[in-house]
Amino acid sequence: MEKFSRNTRIAAITKILIENPNKVINLSEFTEKFNAAKSTVSEDILVVKETLNKFDMGRIDTVAGAAGGVRYVCGVSKEERKSFIDELCSVLREKDRIIPGNFIYMTDIMYNPEIIRKAGIILASEFHNKSVDCVVTVETKGIPLAYEVASMLGVPLVIVRRDNKVTEGTTVSINYVTGSSKRIQTMSLSRKALRNGSKCIFIDDFMKAGGTVTGIINLLKEFDSTLVGIGILVEDVEDTKKLVEERISLVEFSGIDEEESAIVFPSRHFK
Amino acid sequence: MEKFSRNTRIAAITKILIENPNKVINLSEFTEKFNAAKSTVSEDILVVKETLNKFDMGRIDTVAGAAGGVRYVCGVSKEERKSFIDELCSVLREKDRIIPGNFIYMTDIMYNPEIIRKAGIILASEFHNKSVDCVVTVETKGIPLAYEVASMLGVPLVIVRRDNKVTEGTTVSINYVTGSSKRIQTMSLSRKALRNGSKCIFIDDFMKAGGTVTGIINLLKEFDSTLVGIGILVEDVEDTKKLVEERISLVEFSGIDEEESAIVFPSRHFK
Repeated sequence: MEKFSRNTRIAAITKILIENPNKVINLSEFTEKFNAAKSTVSEDILVVKETLNKFDMGRIDTVAGAAGGVRYVCGVSKEERKSFIDELCSVLREKDRIIPGNFIYMTDIMYNPEIIRKAGIILASEFHNKSVDCVVTVETKGIPLAYEVASMLGVPLVIVRRDNKVTEGTTVSINYVTGSSKRIQTMSLSRKALRNGSKCIFIDDFMKAGGTVTGIINLLKEFDSTLVGIGILVEDVEDTKKLVEERISLVEFSGIDEEESAIVFPSRHFK
Repeated sequence: MEKFSRNTRIAAITKILIENPNKVINLSEFTEKFNAAKSTVSEDILVVKETLNKFDMGRIDTVAGAAGGVRYVCGVSKEERKSFIDELCSVLREKDRIIPGNFIYMTDIMYNPEIIRKAGIILASEFHNKSVDCVVTVETKGIPLAYEVASMLGVPLVIVRRDNKVTEGTTVSINYVTGSSKRIQTMSLSRKALRNGSKCIFIDDFMKAGGTVTGIINLLKEFDSTLVGIGILVEDVEDTKKLVEERISLVEFSGIDEEESAIVFPSRHFK
């Protein structure tokens, strides 16, 4: 059987680990693939581990036991995070983003994989210690970000819908009042979509008072499940009627200035 | 300034390339990061390139010219693709997936990052030669898959909505008739969401006659844009009224057998 050089093994191991965030990979998978001894593969992994540490690009954890192995945990350096959030703020300040009703147009940002991948890594890094079972979002704009966070945490995504679909089977629907405009809305979730007793985090593109989150908390109760964290790309800090206390946002929005440009800054959390 | 070993550079270069699919990265980014000569970095990249070839895990392309560099193009071996699609078929055959109205419940599959990442790589690999400008989908279930394909192709995602949202600015709406049930539906897209003259591919979770795609083609016309490909996870081959000819699906569905299990097989395209 073919043998491979250390360089080759390191490139392949790096790729496999990076493509399976938060998934425990048993060393036997590597020893078989490369026809190499466990000690050899362990040394290879040590190089990958040290490289990630050196460049502050996430980490490799070792999981002991029979089902043990190694896993890649995503991460980003403080400098890279800062420059990403600063750049995101300048993009959000672009003048043609303000649309009638004084909303910021963010759809292009939310659907740009290059931006959302980095935002997803930054948010996921905040929840690694919460043993999250799934990531919840409400359709539609936050789905790519929530998917990216779920992907980085290695857990399923759960999408709460605004309507009922025949392809979802039995659903649970609840009504909730939006925090800012006081309108009554409905959200529903398939019975099959969430296992009872799950620990969930909620991820979305934009948050004002947090009426949607209050709705999500009530919906999760129907599944005996709890919300253990909230991650938001842009938070409206103008609205002072905060229905939910703890949340992590990347950017804070506080209205529109006289020059028709959004007033946005990196959030206190990441300063 | 610190120097790094070849092993370290190879691990870091692999990570950076894999995390930026289809994005051209100039060699100077690596020479600066590692304080290494261009010839040294070129040799490192050659190792990564040969490793991907050896294990059939995608490829590294070299792009010549001033704006040139190297880029990672995703890919998967035939064996891995076959075993993934076979496994997907067995999951789809699980009996408790059939829900009233003879639909297959697929939400858990569509929202599982581990499955969707692989499906995304398989579908994206089919469109690398089409110089795609963006990936289009209709909300909601196909969004994670469409996002993954967009991410692998390094292009933005465009999500067509069923309703109008105030946060989208000016939108274009069209009506279309579903191919199977002959109902009239509306779909809309923000004027800002798509640049005129774009070459798009459409990605979705399920396709019957293709009425939605006919709607998408008409909607794209409003943006002087064209559809150059269709990728679907599961295609209903029972419905013979095909409104759209060319499409690539992973799995073919032809109804439900006497034992209440979905009749699914790997699609002809990937056999």
